[in-house]
Amino acid sequence: MNQLSELQIKGKSAKQAARKLAILSTTVKNKALESMADALENECAIILAANAIDIENGKAKDLPQSLVDRLLLTPSRIQAMAEGLRQIVNLSDPIGEVLTTTVRPNGLEISKVRVPLGVIGIIYEARPNVTVDAAGLCLKTGNTVILRGGSEAIYSNTAIIKVIAQAAYDAGVPMGALQLIETTDRQVVNDMLKLNEYLDVIIPRGGAGLIKTVVENSTVPVIETGTGICHTFVDESADLEMAQSIAFNAKVSRPGVCNSMETLLVHQKVAEQFLPDMLKAYQQAGVELRGCPVTRKYNDVVKVASGEDWATEYSDFILSIKVVADIEEALEHIDQYSTRHSEAIITTNLDNAKRFQHEVDAAAVYVNASTRFTDGFEFGFGAEIGISTQKLHARGPMGLAELTSSKYMITGNGQIRE
Amino acid sequence: MNQLSELQIKGKSAKQAARKLAILSTTVKNKALESMADALENECAIILAANAIDIENGKAKDLPQSLVDRLLLTPSRIQAMAEGLRQIVNLSDPIGEVLTTTVRPNGLEISKVRVPLGVIGIIYEARPNVTVDAAGLCLKTGNTVILRGGSEAIYSNTAIIKVIAQAAYDAGVPMGALQLIETTDRQVVNDMLKLNEYLDVIIPRGGAGLIKTVVENSTVPVIETGTGICHTFVDESADLEMAQSIAFNAKVSRPGVCNSMETLLVHQKVAEQFLPDMLKAYQQAGVELRGCPVTRKYNDVVKVASGEDWATEYSDFILSIKVVADIEEALEHIDQYSTRHSEAIITTNLDNAKRFQHEVDAAAVYVNASTRFTDGFEFGFGAEIGISTQKLHARGPMGLAELTSSKYMITGNGQIRE
Repeated sequence: MNQLSELQIKGKSAKQAARKLAILSTTVKNKALESMADALENECAIILAANAIDIENGKAKDLPQSLVDRLLLTPSRIQAMAEGLRQIVNLSDPIGEVLTTTVRPNGLEISKVRVPLGVIGIIYEARPNVTVDAAGLCLKTGNTVILRGGSEAIYSNTAIIKVIAQAAYDAGVPMGALQLIETTDRQVVNDMLKLNEYLDVIIPRGGAGLIKTVVENSTVPVIETGTGICHTFVDESADLEMAQSIAFNAKVSRPGVCNSMETLLVHQKVAEQFLPDMLKAYQQAGVELRGCPVTRKYNDVVKVASGEDWATEYSDFILSIKVVADIEEALEHIDQYSTRHSEAIITTNLDNAKRFQHEVDAAAVYVNASTRFTDGFEFGFGAEIGISTQKLHARGPMGLAELTSSKYMITGNGQIRE
Repeated sequence: MNQLSELQIKGKSAKQAARKLAILSTTVKNKALESMADALENECAIILAANAIDIENGKAKDLPQSLVDRLLLTPSRIQAMAEGLRQIVNLSDPIGEVLTTTVRPNGLEISKVRVPLGVIGIIYEARPNVTVDAAGLCLKTGNTVILRGGSEAIYSNTAIIKVIAQAAYDAGVPMGALQLIETTDRQVVNDMLKLNEYLDVIIPRGGAGLIKTVVENSTVPVIETGTGICHTFVDESADLEMAQSIAFNAKVSRPGVCNSMETLLVHQKVAEQFLPDMLKAYQQAGVELRGCPVTRKYNDVVKVASGEDWATEYSDFILSIKVVADIEEALEHIDQYSTRHSEAIITTNLDNAKRFQHEVDAAAVYVNASTRFTDGFEFGFGAEIGISTQKLHARGPMGLAELTSSKYMITGNGQIRE
């Protein structure tokens, strides 16, 4: 079986299954999710054995330790995946929700009803937990899914999908609803990006490189998920204690994720009062600091920030810092360098708070809180398929509703036009 | 100025203007729309003179008469364009609408607020009215727009945009909000499809060829608007008089548009009673008929329908007809050939009506009404930018709301994560 034909066969199968899955009852979908969770736990040994091969191959290929760590499955990680599925059971099923109903003067009754997107392609890296998570979220929303995970996790993913797809099928989910592309050749990703005949949408989950490849090459509609160059602006009127707590949290609590802060902007009028302690706190936490000339006056460990620093998502214990003249300069800087993910202002001035929230063009704009809250769970969605940094379809954390479309159901009694 | 630099300059200008336009008040936007309408009427002579050049060039190039007709402007057509703008004034401004607000257990207040998409690229054919219509809808929704119309209309479009952009600017709309690409070289379209730096979305408006080119080549997110292979299924239990009225209307009232019917499906149990009169009615209206073998028994003017007929959007006085065994076969046929635009069932059987509406995967699914109603005005939106046949972002007729995105505004009092 060559690459194209695996894709073609699975694409066709997913499309056929989509029609049936779209009208499957919530009861059956929930029962399937429970069965999938149970199966993961019951077949833990098989999955761990497959994972051991990936780990061994990864070590032989000298994969970075961080990648091997993400790849590694343990009984408790598998149980966490099962728990994730059980949590999806408890979320309400968005499918069939009537969003609006209007009756037109001619008597036509027009209802807008929530329906699945259809077939979702998910392209991700070597994180076996995404396999389970994406399968569960797609199933709950009546979407069939074609998964393409990183080749480093192929044995783990193949074992996982075999276990959960069988459990789903036994519970009444149509064959073809949950599928994994087993071809590890990278060319299969390019082919998948052109599979308009079968895929309704592609969601890339991973680093900036993967996302760029998908966005630039896909003819299938894409939901772009996010890189984040996030800023925190400490305004002239900020409660400086609060500012220090938030700015510290935004950088240090988990620098590797997309909602962490990369650049701190400080109003010139509070720089002298705010920066010395703040810089010391970062220094003690092991954060490498790169600042503008004014910032560097307050601590000589601060390196020179180059133009490139403002445009870099470090995803690491590195922070760039700039002292700005006023909120206008902060807005300009953010407009120029933001990836439109999450931005924050710390202020006690209501006008500035409002202005910042209205003028900053980003998925999430915070007043007096850490950017780290941009997350489907923190927003109360109970799930997250990713964080959209585009403006079409979905923006910000995506929960179940963002995996749906709508259709109009129109009921008449013989109406004709004109 | 080469092509790329016209695009780059206008793209940058549109992006800068977008930040200002996004926060412009409804009052100013409405005043601008009124001024644009007045200016169109006041500068009618200039626009007609420019249009005369396009018409002359078109005739010299032997453009088809239908194209020349669409290209032609008259004082009454210009007045209709102005009236279109005045109607947009009366629509409520969607920008700033608070879609949801939740307060999280930690006290964070999260509001989802409607915002503009940003910069919209519109690629269309030689219809000067689209220039005005698209500019008005984008302005009302706080989006800046870069228009690229068919080269055959370049003099008309250039004159129109000069008039309305000046009027908008004088009314307080930022410079760069309404722009037209004046380069007529086709390469500029390809460059526009890659202008991710400045464009948030591209909407193609035109025939299947244009839409295909845009979908296949654009790296900017696209809202696909539609081709329509629409079906009407006359069920066993249909009120046959109603069925005849609807099926006639769906084909004959305006065959050139995307919501008109291309294929009529008839349940075998009513074929003998229904088809002879129906076929005669079509015949008298000048509709060319292509049918399955059973259909052809009822009228010998019916030609043989080939496999290709079922997959063709005629957009003309041509209809394909198939007698099917039951609703299942009708659903299968629609699933195979539908472009997922508009589909209808004529039935008195409630179960079949429900089944059809739930199982048919299309933007608009009708019971006992003509597919011709799929239209922003008929749906009560007061406007229409196109009819989306994709599932992402917007599906079906797109009004003002479909030209918007959202952002989360989060207000806290010092919350940090974990």
